[in-house]
Amino acid sequence: MREIFKQEMEQLGGDLLTMAKHMSSAIEKATKALETADLTLAEEVIDADRQIDEIERSLDEQGVSLLARQQPVATDLRVVVSAMRLSATIERMGDLARHVAYVARGRYPEVAATGRTREILHQMGEQAVKVARQVVELLESRDLNLAERIEADDDVLDRLHRESFQVVLDDDEQLTRQQLVDAVLLGRYLERFGDHGVSVARRVSFLVTGDLQNAVVNTGVLGLKDEQVTDQAARQD
Amino acid sequence: MREIFKQEMEQLGGDLLTMAKHMSSAIEKATKALETADLTLAEEVIDADRQIDEIERSLDEQGVSLLARQQPVATDLRVVVSAMRLSATIERMGDLARHVAYVARGRYPEVAATGRTREILHQMGEQAVKVARQVVELLESRDLNLAERIEADDDVLDRLHRESFQVVLDDDEQLTRQQLVDAVLLGRYLERFGDHGVSVARRVSFLVTGDLQNAVVNTGVLGLKDEQVTDQAARQD
Repeated sequence: MREIFKQEMEQLGGDLLTMAKHMSSAIEKATKALETADLTLAEEVIDADRQIDEIERSLDEQGVSLLARQQPVATDLRVVVSAMRLSATIERMGDLARHVAYVARGRYPEVAATGRTREILHQMGEQAVKVARQVVELLESRDLNLAERIEADDDVLDRLHRESFQVVLDDDEQLTRQQLVDAVLLGRYLERFGDHGVSVARRVSFLVTGDLQNAVVNTGVLGLKDEQVTDQAARQD
Repeated sequence: MREIFKQEMEQLGGDLLTMAKHMSSAIEKATKALETADLTLAEEVIDADRQIDEIERSLDEQGVSLLARQQPVATDLRVVVSAMRLSATIERMGDLARHVAYVARGRYPEVAATGRTREILHQMGEQAVKVARQVVELLESRDLNLAERIEADDDVLDRLHRESFQVVLDDDEQLTRQQLVDAVLLGRYLERFGDHGVSVARRVSFLVTGDLQNAVVNTGVLGLKDEQVTDQAARQD
């Protein structure tokens, strides 16, 4: 029984990581499609989102089935519940990447932004990609330094988002209405993308540091190692 | 044991309903604050969102604790997991109401929109309020006709959202940049609000009709009545 349980937890963790990798690839391609007005790339992102949705559905079913059959408690239970929540968040990040790709596709063969707006959206895109990559790394490594970095990168994203409003509200900035609408929407998508990254970071941190008194089980599902738990315990003091 | 379990499930359902009522009141006040440039009302919504967040946190803890101690299976398990997911969605709807209130507050003493944009946002606001009220009613009654109506109302919301783009993209429409930015953001918030309403509707439908073979337990948490289950079974055929 325990062996099956361990395998299932590993499967859950593996699926979560696969999902995160798809999501990271999606935002990378979507922001590139946006900058280079690459229709094929944009459509690739839009099509690939179905895979992310599919993994989320399967992960959800696995989670409920695991709860029903194995009835985990303590840390194991928290890990399963967290995995289900993380998958919902990562799925949403994938959706936002798809939304970015929609804008790229909608403006083709033009690029969606010009001038200062383009520059700021470029920077926001870079930050979003950074967040996504660190989310993947965090799920792999449980390194809480990465969780902190995700929060810091999201702060930059929020600052850029505020700047983007200054630019679009500046009447001297030459923008068509379409460019203005796109800039507002893209800014919102990328800002939300960062927020979800932070949500993943906090949930993983909580999982690693949350109930250290009880966190003695190396569940495997999220690669939680005993030494990391101890390390985190030290940092908490 | 079973008596405690039943009480806890009822508590979970009760909290979910309280949350939904707060959320419904929030969107009602936020859209009113937006239309009448009512600063006090806008701030009320912003402050009250903390209550919604608080209930969500508590509901989450209750859910995990219930899973750990009672180890429910079959329908009971699905109800607990669903309640936790519904609470996340309703919390998000509350956030979006707060975002609408932010715009109202930010433009005070002006109103945030004029002309055709104002008219469309007014209609979108009305639809969003309708969705919210039906979500409350659905959680109370489990009446799947309401779930269908929520989907239909969201379709109207989506159509209005598309129309709002036509208006803001029309160069003949007199709009300051701030009004344009606000219209895009408000349109997005209200459209997302409707999407989340649909997500609640679908989850509740799934819960009522999902595994009818096994749905014999009247859990109380979501007021699931045996006769309704039978009724739904008939409709499914």
